[in-house]
Amino acid sequence: MRLSARNQIKGTVVEVKKGATTSHIRVDIGSGVIVTSAITNEAVDELGVKAKDHVTVVIKASDVMIGVG
Amino acid sequence: MRLSARNQIKGTVVEVKKGATTSHIRVDIGSGVIVTSAITNEAVDELGVKAKDHVTVVIKASDVMIGVG
Amino acid sequence: MRLSARNQIKGTVVEVKKGATTSHIRVDIGSGVIVTSAITNEAVDELGVKAKDHVTVVIKASDVMIGVG
Amino acid sequence: MRLSARNQIKGTVVEVKKGATTSHIRVDIGSGVIVTSAITNEAVDELGVKAKDHVTVVIKASDVMIGVG
Amino acid sequence: MRLSARNQIKGTVVEVKKGATTSHIRVDIGSGVIVTSAITNEAVDELGVKAKDHVTVVIKASDVMIGVG
Amino acid sequence: MRLSARNQIKGTVVEVKKGATTSHIRVDIGSGVIVTSAITNEAVDELGVKAKDHVTVVIKASDVMIGVG
Repeated sequence: MRLSARNQIKGTVVEVKKGATTSHIRVDIGSGVIVTSAITNEAVDELGVKAKDHVTVVIKASDVMIGVG
Repeated sequence: MRLSARNQIKGTVVEVKKGATTSHIRVDIGSGVIVTSAITNEAVDELGVKAKDHVTVVIKASDVMIGVG
Repeated sequence: MRLSARNQIKGTVVEVKKGATTSHIRVDIGSGVIVTSAITNEAVDELGVKAKDHVTVVIKASDVMIGVG
Repeated sequence: MRLSARNQIKGTVVEVKKGATTSHIRVDIGSGVIVTSAITNEAVDELGVKAKDHVTVVIKASDVMIGVG
Repeated sequence: MRLSARNQIKGTVVEVKKGATTSHIRVDIGSGVIVTSAITNEAVDELGVKAKDHVTVVIKASDVMIGVG
Repeated sequence: MRLSARNQIKGTVVEVKKGATTSHIRVDIGSGVIVTSAITNEAVDELGVKAKDHVTVVIKASDVMIGVG
């Protein structure tokens, strides 16, 4: 499935940290940049996401802010 | 100001494309990865964002999805 | 690509309405329910979305509110 | 209260699953389509949401992505 | 309709600025604080929002970041 | 760092309630208005946010809905 989301960045899972209903996934997208994602535990189980997996980080353009200075 | 947002990635503005009320900013965050941001024209004017500027891309963890396969 | 987003609903595009930088896509997901999506014009062009296309509407669980009464 | 959100879909609560601070609500919106919502436990308690309740699922157009293929 | 959104703040519309598909609404919520909302033109027309109207600003807790310093 | 987010409102932390991975922060922004924010525990620890701290509540315009009536 191709997606409308403007940002689809490939990376490697560094860590999966499960909470009560929400998990935090840390993904290395290269050049030492780590992106953190908060998704449901259900999604983690269904996708079988674990450390060292190759994944795509997906972010809508309207969810990206710009900081200056 | 330090922010709660988990993702704060430094980059360089590649392009600013203004619409009627919303602008699209393309930021090179290294390794050939371009992040697209949709912000208000008002924000673009106020921050004075333009091509070649060094900026920080800010994204909440709950706005980052994971894709597999 | 399989996605972490909890809501992935199949439907048929009813209308694509382009703005200056943002388009509004109306998708019939069955039972007379229409879902409206606001995505970038760039995404519309890249995906080639047009009326009568079969698409999937994708929504994160954390973007869904509940109303009562 | 009438809302600006473009998507307001009626349905019936199928399941309420409470976490530490966040609950997941599953709502049947007809034709076998289930929508999952992640809201605060506080909201669940305040609204008194429980299985079989008739509720409205509320989603902003800018939170709806489109997938193709 | 009562909503799960944790933040529902009453205010008075100061300005409605229409774009091609998106409008910016500025709402005075008291103590000199102005909140800016970006909604679809369609929502503005349907709700009939105009300056001096009494409205409620609605924001999910997961869309609120914290800045320090 | 100056931010593109249209809403940056100063306030005082009233309560920090930690969950398994997500915390809820309640901020008094004046005139008796309390804003609730859901951020990661990690962010709370890193910023050292606690009751009585002076903070800034940051919200994108596209995350603000309007309710009427």
